[in-house]
Amino acid sequence: MFLATVTVTIKENVLDPQGQAVEGALHSLGFEEASNVRIGKYMELTIDSGDREEAHRKVVEMCEKLLSNPVIEDYQFELTAVQKGVAL
Amino acid sequence: MFLATVTVTIKENVLDPQGQAVEGALHSLGFEEASNVRIGKYMELTIDSGDREEAHRKVVEMCEKLLSNPVIEDYQFELTAVQKGVAL
Repeated sequence: MFLATVTVTIKENVLDPQGQAVEGALHSLGFEEASNVRIGKYMELTIDSGDREEAHRKVVEMCEKLLSNPVIEDYQFELTAVQKGVAL
Repeated sequence: MFLATVTVTIKENVLDPQGQAVEGALHSLGFEEASNVRIGKYMELTIDSGDREEAHRKVVEMCEKLLSNPVIEDYQFELTAVQKGVAL
């Protein structure tokens, strides 16, 4: 089994209105030092597979088909071997 | 300047309906090997500060006040020294 931690971010040249809203809210709260706020998604999932390469291939497929929108988003992920939820 | 990368996750004992929905969708697409899907947030922001300790303190404050809901969410972050958006 593998724990996959996936990060999905909006591509650099794509507008991020959610990030702009959070940046505005931070400034309103007095955090003037915050800028370039970009919001993405973070996902954790367990992959029931004994083979790292197969798990890797599956996660790529999940990211391309469902977890991200490849037109406007980038994704990256890490695989950690686990046994019943405990890192090896 | 520092680049802060913040990850906000739902606490382990809190239900994650969004994760359950994504897990159901993965299964519908034939990805039966996916389980324990949990969805969180990923944020990148630039902190205009020359002092790592001050930047760290500010990001903790931002996480506690706005970026996360400490009642049901955990957060962690990393700070990377940058110059005009380029890692040093």
